[in-house]
Amino acid sequence: MTRPDGDETVRDAVADWWATAITRMSPGVIEMRGRPIQDLIGTVGLVEMIWLLLRGDLPTPRQASLLEAALVAGVDHGPHAPSIAVARMAATCGVGLNNAIASGVNVLGDAHGGAGQQCVEMLTEVCERRREGADVADAAGATIEAWRARSPYLPGFGHRFHPVDPRRAPLLGLVEAAVVEGVVAGDFLAAATAVEQALQRPGRRPVPINIDGCTAVIYGELGFPAPLARGLFVLSRSVGILAHAWEETQSGRRNKGPMPPDIMPTFLTP
Amino acid sequence: MTRPDGDETVRDAVADWWATAITRMSPGVIEMRGRPIQDLIGTVGLVEMIWLLLRGDLPTPRQASLLEAALVAGVDHGPHAPSIAVARMAATCGVGLNNAIASGVNVLGDAHGGAGQQCVEMLTEVCERRREGADVADAAGATIEAWRARSPYLPGFGHRFHPVDPRRAPLLGLVEAAVVEGVVAGDFLAAATAVEQALQRPGRRPVPINIDGCTAVIYGELGFPAPLARGLFVLSRSVGILAHAWEETQSGRRNKGPMPPDIMPTFLTP
Amino acid sequence: MTRPDGDETVRDAVADWWATAITRMSPGVIEMRGRPIQDLIGTVGLVEMIWLLLRGDLPTPRQASLLEAALVAGVDHGPHAPSIAVARMAATCGVGLNNAIASGVNVLGDAHGGAGQQCVEMLTEVCERRREGADVADAAGATIEAWRARSPYLPGFGHRFHPVDPRRAPLLGLVEAAVVEGVVAGDFLAAATAVEQALQRPGRRPVPINIDGCTAVIYGELGFPAPLARGLFVLSRSVGILAHAWEETQSGRRNKGPMPPDIMPTFLTP
Amino acid sequence: MTRPDGDETVRDAVADWWATAITRMSPGVIEMRGRPIQDLIGTVGLVEMIWLLLRGDLPTPRQASLLEAALVAGVDHGPHAPSIAVARMAATCGVGLNNAIASGVNVLGDAHGGAGQQCVEMLTEVCERRREGADVADAAGATIEAWRARSPYLPGFGHRFHPVDPRRAPLLGLVEAAVVEGVVAGDFLAAATAVEQALQRPGRRPVPINIDGCTAVIYGELGFPAPLARGLFVLSRSVGILAHAWEETQSGRRNKGPMPPDIMPTFLTP
Repeated sequence: MTRPDGDETVRDAVADWWATAITRMSPGVIEMRGRPIQDLIGTVGLVEMIWLLLRGDLPTPRQASLLEAALVAGVDHGPHAPSIAVARMAATCGVGLNNAIASGVNVLGDAHGGAGQQCVEMLTEVCERRREGADVADAAGATIEAWRARSPYLPGFGHRFHPVDPRRAPLLGLVEAAVVEGVVAGDFLAAATAVEQALQRPGRRPVPINIDGCTAVIYGELGFPAPLARGLFVLSRSVGILAHAWEETQSGRRNKGPMPPDIMPTFLTP
Repeated sequence: MTRPDGDETVRDAVADWWATAITRMSPGVIEMRGRPIQDLIGTVGLVEMIWLLLRGDLPTPRQASLLEAALVAGVDHGPHAPSIAVARMAATCGVGLNNAIASGVNVLGDAHGGAGQQCVEMLTEVCERRREGADVADAAGATIEAWRARSPYLPGFGHRFHPVDPRRAPLLGLVEAAVVEGVVAGDFLAAATAVEQALQRPGRRPVPINIDGCTAVIYGELGFPAPLARGLFVLSRSVGILAHAWEETQSGRRNKGPMPPDIMPTFLTP
Repeated sequence: MTRPDGDETVRDAVADWWATAITRMSPGVIEMRGRPIQDLIGTVGLVEMIWLLLRGDLPTPRQASLLEAALVAGVDHGPHAPSIAVARMAATCGVGLNNAIASGVNVLGDAHGGAGQQCVEMLTEVCERRREGADVADAAGATIEAWRARSPYLPGFGHRFHPVDPRRAPLLGLVEAAVVEGVVAGDFLAAATAVEQALQRPGRRPVPINIDGCTAVIYGELGFPAPLARGLFVLSRSVGILAHAWEETQSGRRNKGPMPPDIMPTFLTP
Repeated sequence: MTRPDGDETVRDAVADWWATAITRMSPGVIEMRGRPIQDLIGTVGLVEMIWLLLRGDLPTPRQASLLEAALVAGVDHGPHAPSIAVARMAATCGVGLNNAIASGVNVLGDAHGGAGQQCVEMLTEVCERRREGADVADAAGATIEAWRARSPYLPGFGHRFHPVDPRRAPLLGLVEAAVVEGVVAGDFLAAATAVEQALQRPGRRPVPINIDGCTAVIYGELGFPAPLARGLFVLSRSVGILAHAWEETQSGRRNKGPMPPDIMPTFLTP
């Protein structure tokens, strides 16, 4: 990126402090990544706009539809998810819908929504080992070992609730089709499949790729850096958070706690 | 809504406390508004998913594209917007991208993002006065008067920065086309246009419908309740908030304050 | 407040944009409300510091102890409070303690924590009616009537859980003692007592002053504007929020939902 | 901790899910760490309450005053701190004071407020090396080396703004006095002093212990686990965040951006 030359005055210093390559504003003008907003409204979809703002160019229709599938898949997983429960309780406390959504989004941390980011990182390690010459099974095995030395959790695999996640087949099916059509290279899909196979033990329950793993494959195939896997999941889950906060708002309940009021929390004596 | 009959046990009471009509979960099953998630992934777009979760049914393609235009139009307005500035600063403080986005979304309150909700309410008042027999110009005039008695701000009209907002023409053009095609009834468009005309004074700078007003027209025409105008704007602006937080993250800056460090805030002596 | 004279340059404009009367900073210097920080550390207590930053001067020891009692009384009310439940769930999601606390504080809105602010406003109305000549019983009655015309909730009176709130007697006792000693005037105490009496109906369960009402009396007596009743409650409840978030952190649980995982939310069919 | 015996019913399971050792509630009863709230109001200070809720017992007066000094010292550092700037902007956006405070607290992450936590961890490492037999200078040197291998930042030392932080002398003076009186052991003070000396290079500007380092010494001496250094800083800084949000509220400004509206952010062309 380049900045226009010129004397560095205080005005320039302040303007530079808030420099951005995303949006150019002047009276009557809004350009996003160099494109006038009036050329985008009505011609570009929301998913293409997400891509444009994050990456500076527009996706092909096939890239956009792959990204869209990932975003659609993650919108909700019901009130057991802390993000949803938090937003529903917030909506009863006399704050705005924006505050309720923010409360839900705020808890999409390393342990809840962050698995996608970590899974992109892990699958990137598998890809790097392959580029250095390992075959994919060895690359997966070595990466699993390295990851387990650092953390008790292997991100993107297994689910405490679903034996088979119903989102797995359609998402991976879309990636497979995209590989066949040359839309994406297939390295992340191969890496994830190899990890899944390496985790398979005779006589043991399988540890299948879960929703975080499936979307990590898509984000990785499309070239998004790992932290954006979390960012994109936030956009996706915000849809469910809004829907739940709105449903709760309509109930008229005030100060909803986590359980019916007649059940008292157990008091733990020291 | 109906609940299954049966003895009200503690388990039922707790389950009912978190009752929802949005998503049904059981092991291996995720259904959204009654539709299996595997039937939605790859066939339904993100905007249709937003509509489905909020309203329980799917929009027609023309309804979806109108909603999509409103969501695309609001994604960003640069770092002067508090939501964007807040998210950029948050991103430098060693918190997750989800926390940075939440910080930005949290400030989309009554005075920043809430204008859309208020504008839907105001335009609804105009529509109600018409239904009671007033012509649209009188309905607009009476509503402006009633609104000004309650608040110094007329939501959805005028802009401190853009003499003509470049998003106005394409958005209203899409609504006009949708009215012609019978997709929407046109009552909110008529109401907004009448308010705009009523605000016009000879020799004075016009007070045109702004982005909040244009999207309020769309949300109102599509039948969204007023609070969802704010909710939908949150989804839209989250895209820009994420893009700016991510751009700032890449700068590597730590603890970004609001201005270059060598400028000290003026100290106001008592 | 006065600003130093001088040419309005860009630097001045930016410095003025962030002008403050709270803290003066220069290299090696931190002054709070005109007092060097090194003179405050070790000599001034936390409660006095709260008062100093909010009001510009230091409280007398008796004023400080009255404020301290209100702050001590509100620190916690257990996990049924949404603020506490939210913070505990947040703490299991892989975010920082600061994010968990923010999530809890964020829900202390109009319906949860905002009652103190509203009660100061209501008691102020009673005081104003007295200043205009009404006796306190009439002033209380007229204010109750006016308030009920605007809202179904009378802030600061009654409790859904405690028939008698154990915090009521010690808090009001401290205010009574302060009135006797001339520390405060007693107008808010008289107003609250009159409202409590006006709500008493023969043969009906009494509607006693609750914790929000008791602290509203203290904040009002000490001269805090109504919005600071909410702000001060935030400082107080932050203590409990931190303690609960920390307790939950130590459990090692990840992604705590609102109920045990084997209880599924009731699905409401349309 | 022990739980009452008895059959594990659904009610018990739900009650246990929200078990806590902090507060016991029943109608008419609020006990904090086993002490009735009515015995605490008016007799225990806010700082003692913080200690009680976090640790289960009450501090001695000397312990409380040391903790109080640390909490007083960190309340504010002016609008350059992102937490303060964020809260001030939030306060102009039409959200509640609680939301403005939450927005500020939310950014007190690893890079802004987290240094205290990291410094407690680092000083703990020095103490552990001493316990294993190293003298304090060697322990400090080895710890600095180990820390620098992991991170470019040495937490708690140096300040980009203050050559000498005016909070350093009074805080360390209070710790020294407490060591002399036997209130605390002095290990963290010795560790911090040894690190400061090890960083001293002939002809170079010193890298003195900063506010995060001084408060880390106090928290460490008092036996708080490292994460609570961040938690306690949140309580402290919340005071300044509230004061700034309130000051900005009184200005009446709406939608305050980060700089005067006539300065436009530099647009970075690709």
